[in-house]
Amino acid sequence: MARLKGFQELTPIKEALNEFFKVLQPKRLDTLLIPVKEAMGRVTAKSIIAERNLPPFDRSAMDGYALKAKDTFEASQFQPKTLHLVKKETVEKGEAKEIWTGNPLPKGADTVTMLEHTKKTDGKIEVLISLTPGANVSKKGEDLKKGDPVVEDGVELKPHHLGLLAASGTKEIEVVRKPRAAILPTGNELVALEDKLKPNQIIEVNSIILSGMCTELGAKAFSLGIATDNENEIKEKIREGLAKADMVITTGGTSVGIHDVVPKVIEQMERHSVVAHGIAMRPSMPTALAVVHGKPVIILSGNPVAAVVGFEVFARPLIQKLLGIRNDTRVKLKAKMTRRVAGVLGRRVFLRVKVVEKDGEFLAEPIRVKGSSIITTMTKANGYVVIPEDREGLRENEIVTVHLFDTIKEEVENV
Amino acid sequence: MARLKGFQELTPIKEALNEFFKVLQPKRLDTLLIPVKEAMGRVTAKSIIAERNLPPFDRSAMDGYALKAKDTFEASQFQPKTLHLVKKETVEKGEAKEIWTGNPLPKGADTVTMLEHTKKTDGKIEVLISLTPGANVSKKGEDLKKGDPVVEDGVELKPHHLGLLAASGTKEIEVVRKPRAAILPTGNELVALEDKLKPNQIIEVNSIILSGMCTELGAKAFSLGIATDNENEIKEKIREGLAKADMVITTGGTSVGIHDVVPKVIEQMERHSVVAHGIAMRPSMPTALAVVHGKPVIILSGNPVAAVVGFEVFARPLIQKLLGIRNDTRVKLKAKMTRRVAGVLGRRVFLRVKVVEKDGEFLAEPIRVKGSSIITTMTKANGYVVIPEDREGLRENEIVTVHLFDTIKEEVENV
Repeated sequence: MARLKGFQELTPIKEALNEFFKVLQPKRLDTLLIPVKEAMGRVTAKSIIAERNLPPFDRSAMDGYALKAKDTFEASQFQPKTLHLVKKETVEKGEAKEIWTGNPLPKGADTVTMLEHTKKTDGKIEVLISLTPGANVSKKGEDLKKGDPVVEDGVELKPHHLGLLAASGTKEIEVVRKPRAAILPTGNELVALEDKLKPNQIIEVNSIILSGMCTELGAKAFSLGIATDNENEIKEKIREGLAKADMVITTGGTSVGIHDVVPKVIEQMERHSVVAHGIAMRPSMPTALAVVHGKPVIILSGNPVAAVVGFEVFARPLIQKLLGIRNDTRVKLKAKMTRRVAGVLGRRVFLRVKVVEKDGEFLAEPIRVKGSSIITTMTKANGYVVIPEDREGLRENEIVTVHLFDTIKEEVENV
Repeated sequence: MARLKGFQELTPIKEALNEFFKVLQPKRLDTLLIPVKEAMGRVTAKSIIAERNLPPFDRSAMDGYALKAKDTFEASQFQPKTLHLVKKETVEKGEAKEIWTGNPLPKGADTVTMLEHTKKTDGKIEVLISLTPGANVSKKGEDLKKGDPVVEDGVELKPHHLGLLAASGTKEIEVVRKPRAAILPTGNELVALEDKLKPNQIIEVNSIILSGMCTELGAKAFSLGIATDNENEIKEKIREGLAKADMVITTGGTSVGIHDVVPKVIEQMERHSVVAHGIAMRPSMPTALAVVHGKPVIILSGNPVAAVVGFEVFARPLIQKLLGIRNDTRVKLKAKMTRRVAGVLGRRVFLRVKVVEKDGEFLAEPIRVKGSSIITTMTKANGYVVIPEDREGLRENEIVTVHLFDTIKEEVENV
């Protein structure tokens, strides 16, 4: 059993995450077979191999005439070559046959001339250019050869993947089951959005934000309902979550020693291991990571911004491991800091920024921070910048990497 | 009625799109009221104004003790100030009261000291630092003031927006109805994925890819089923689509003059206007845009890559207009071309590229193109670069803007 660490001793993110995964040994979840047409956003469980060639035959890439390239050699606008139009199946020397994009190349033909490069006259065409064999033809297997990988395993399926799978004749595909996350907001001051708000109460929003983040990642979240700061209540709900879900994510009740109700509850449970408590980061320092009965429990701060950052750093890679996704990150871009920002030596700082494009350059404007409870610092931002543990801060005009979590709005219409 | 343009005369994208929207006059669709908890990815119909302050009262941003800042002036590690711990509602001069993050500040207190900066002794605390009024306090209305905009109209809701809406007490929100797109794949050579494939047939995949792209944009697509190149069949299906959906998107049957079955069908319909046919772009040149009975018909090439690019350029901004989204584009980043690529003077070229991050720099590697039927050019790419009409090509090492449509895979794990 790992011991709770005091906050004098913060664990670096990398160490905490490594230890978490070492104790947990997260495995990819089980899989299911679903129709390709319903597989948008799902993650492939195994790599798919093409069972046939794509295209399955040599086909025309243009609307025009199928013919023998040799018959056009030395043809030009000034010296067109004349060919006989035929309707029969095979194209012989001196013949051409009408063909549309996608149609199989008729026997005997080895190239296609575009309509624009011909003149049609009574039963004949004049070809105005010289063509090489294979011109304007999609060769059999050019897109995919039988045995080629169509989509690797661990890929989140986008529309173009579905297209390629379907084109190669795959009707059903094995995908990874969606990870289930049970979310447990804790705190005496909290009230559910649906319920009547009394004075001095705060509407519980962490479960709403974190559920949305789970959905974005391809996981399924449900709330266990608000728990007060009562140890038994929290314990019961964590048990319920462990029984029903692949992970439990709590918010609130983790802090400096004496107000640590959630980690304390974990310590009372059987077969538990608190692998880290107090992380060298800002915000989200009070985060704790635990494994109970072989399942992960991620204990996040009650402050919405801290909860989001803690989720991003710890729950996101966990969900991706359960899905079998490799080395995937948010979309990143390089941007120039519009002003200097202080870091915290020894802590990794997650700075919210608003990226704007100005004169073809991306600028990262830091959002003024005041405490990690201010949700508008997230809605005003569209990304975050990581200030490393060993940096005192970021300089004005420094080029930084921004991890985007929302779109960049254009100043003007971009047609 | 606009006339069909021959392909000698290609319409620039900007002109085609302007004319399309001028004839169509697309309006934002009707709206509906839904619970905030179910609003992920939906688009706001009006801007939401905060009906109350957030936080609704001055509250502690830390776990610690609420007190009067004045009582700590000149306190230090060497000269701590001693305060009496109280449990009553009001904090008087010389007193302090335990407080947790999120709790309302008790009457009389104007600041909070962190636990770390105190020593607790029997019924008293020693404060080791000097605090200013307001320190570690989230002031009432600091996140949102009553009357502040919470979320603007035309915003695609992300988890953090839902959090802010919920926090400010919004339970239901007016969102725009999802645009409905009817997709009509045409072509004698096509067979549905579900059906038995005969020799010389091609599996129809455009409806699958375009449906996925609609879903990504927050629209709802359905297929009208494959139509052969028969004019009456196509006409009936377009009529069905116009009756059931907000737009019809066809693929195939648009090309140079003589094989133009879909535009020809449109010309036979009542109250139609073909606003452009033949666009100065590559791929997707045979695209046509029409308005029939006041509804948009987007006529795309049958080649999957061309269909996707045509959708991106014409259907995407249309769907966003119907949703009321303003100036939104794909995520873009700057990357360096790994080799030179030729453009086509007078045409806007959409070049598929694979962006990789190497030594902290983004490189854009062009995907070798051979015809617009090669679907793997999309699955190998994660973005596209636009080569403008007036450029002969892109130089090696040129910095270009990449529009991303898939994630960038990391070479190494990024913890």
